[in-house]
Amino acid sequence: MTNRPTTVTITGGGGQIGYALMFRIAAGDMLGPDVPVRLRLLEIPHGMRSAEGAALELQDCAFPLLREIEITDDPLTAFDGTHIAMLVGARPRSAGMERADLLAANAGIFGPQGAAIGAVADDDVRVVVVGNPANTNALIAAASAGPDVPVERFTALTRLDHNRAVGQLAETLQVGAGEIADVVIWGNHSATQFPDVSHAILPDGMPVLEALAERLGGRDAATAWLDDVFIPRVAKRGAEIIEVRGSSSVASAANAAIDHVRDEQLGTRRGMTSAAVVSHGEYGVPEGLVCSFPVISRGDGYEVVEGLDLDERARQRVAASVDELVAERDAVRALGVL
Amino acid sequence: MTNRPTTVTITGGGGQIGYALMFRIAAGDMLGPDVPVRLRLLEIPHGMRSAEGAALELQDCAFPLLREIEITDDPLTAFDGTHIAMLVGARPRSAGMERADLLAANAGIFGPQGAAIGAVADDDVRVVVVGNPANTNALIAAASAGPDVPVERFTALTRLDHNRAVGQLAETLQVGAGEIADVVIWGNHSATQFPDVSHAILPDGMPVLEALAERLGGRDAATAWLDDVFIPRVAKRGAEIIEVRGSSSVASAANAAIDHVRDEQLGTRRGMTSAAVVSHGEYGVPEGLVCSFPVISRGDGYEVVEGLDLDERARQRVAASVDELVAERDAVRALGVL
Repeated sequence: MTNRPTTVTITGGGGQIGYALMFRIAAGDMLGPDVPVRLRLLEIPHGMRSAEGAALELQDCAFPLLREIEITDDPLTAFDGTHIAMLVGARPRSAGMERADLLAANAGIFGPQGAAIGAVADDDVRVVVVGNPANTNALIAAASAGPDVPVERFTALTRLDHNRAVGQLAETLQVGAGEIADVVIWGNHSATQFPDVSHAILPDGMPVLEALAERLGGRDAATAWLDDVFIPRVAKRGAEIIEVRGSSSVASAANAAIDHVRDEQLGTRRGMTSAAVVSHGEYGVPEGLVCSFPVISRGDGYEVVEGLDLDERARQRVAASVDELVAERDAVRALGVL
Repeated sequence: MTNRPTTVTITGGGGQIGYALMFRIAAGDMLGPDVPVRLRLLEIPHGMRSAEGAALELQDCAFPLLREIEITDDPLTAFDGTHIAMLVGARPRSAGMERADLLAANAGIFGPQGAAIGAVADDDVRVVVVGNPANTNALIAAASAGPDVPVERFTALTRLDHNRAVGQLAETLQVGAGEIADVVIWGNHSATQFPDVSHAILPDGMPVLEALAERLGGRDAATAWLDDVFIPRVAKRGAEIIEVRGSSSVASAANAAIDHVRDEQLGTRRGMTSAAVVSHGEYGVPEGLVCSFPVISRGDGYEVVEGLDLDERARQRVAASVDELVAERDAVRALGVL
């Protein structure tokens, strides 16, 4: 084994998504079969015992790639020299909680974590925020990291929305999920997101829109299905999962985080995927917002794919989700966090 | 994609181990990155909703290798044409339950499942029993499958014990888990099992026993550590996990099942591993018992590695665990199941 170990820090490591993540990472699913891994689990004191149990089970897997597991409740220890930070733990919205309260509670988590990353992480660190509100949490972490970490290193997860969209299309078109390329999630990881299939294609180059029209009985039927079934279903899939499972998405969220980091580190394979990255004004999205865009990676971070045509309907949907991101940012600013 | 899909049936697919298994299988961890998979989840009516939730999340992963997910409570549907059957669901021992009751309850599960496998599975089916008492459940399933399925196709999982043993040795010797080869679990997947390190070696060929003596201050200290710390810790690791996690081993059990099937299907990589297979009298173990042995695979099923030397102490430990397997078999016979 000549590769140097990669240090991966997971926050909320004692939670369910953390549990679903760490075994797949240790098995090589995220960084490939030749890259040894050091895992660091950051937890609040309340979650330490559960993280310790997971660490025992990791030891019981005898993973050849797993070099070390460390559990801590100190961000400076957790992020020391880390290469990949997966910020999973967040404060969920409780009953009756106002948005400002939710943003403030999470600013209290992602601010200090961003600062710790700025202080002690590896020079080449990449950060993905999984914990909601993911886009704005990433914005807070990036701002808190200070000037030593380029803001491009901070991303938020919309790959779960992306994969959900692909799954729905695959089912409707009766094709394998791997055959659908170039779906795009725009905007916020929330109900305002815009899952956009207008650029999506099948392996023979056939536009997904055409395939949908063929399958559903014409262009109008396809448009109606997209507006009335597909978009709301993707946007509200989390609630559907909770209703059927009795608990929220866990393994699929972990899988999306693995896909996100793998493609960022090793390169996207076929066409575009979706990730929330810091805007430099692409597609008119205000600079500095963490917004989901079409992205590719050549193995050195995500870059936005520019120049896609958006029709009026698409522009309106993107604008609505961006407005929400602006409102979240302004609310955080009003709290004095940014 | 030119490979034909492999059909994998998981019983208890709505349970926690099933949940930890199916995403890794769909990601290619078990059969490799080029083999498409059809998943069948067998559940009792009570577990169907949870299995359906897991199926939705599998769809939300957009796994390129996953061809189909089917959920059923009918064994004949679940095992129809299946290539790999992973029998996870079992009746756990409840408070005050006698061994005969436990064996009878599980005979009521594994008997009909074995019969269904005999009736409808693929000619080349391989079966691994994960649900406890795993060895005797495998014995029952094999007997119930009838003459069309060779008994060698039925195995039970002791890879979790094997991996736990490797993990403990790696920690004590301060080496990577991948560096330790040729550990053997003998006997029953229970507290009587014998984790045997007398044949285990490090990559430079150094016997693990010598490395332990060096590390722990001599041969006597190493023997004392093996008898007083290592063997009981491996045998009782399940209870330790429950104490720390507040729930039983899940991801590590799923990982061991994946290791078991992967090595059986694709071949063991370095040296021996451990699996419970039907005895043909090897090492004096009565014919027909499902007993954990040192095994290798060339990609076409496990075969017992014969001719290893066992000293008196080892022979006694193996005999004690085999006695327990005989007692379980006799108890099942007394129930009229075999």
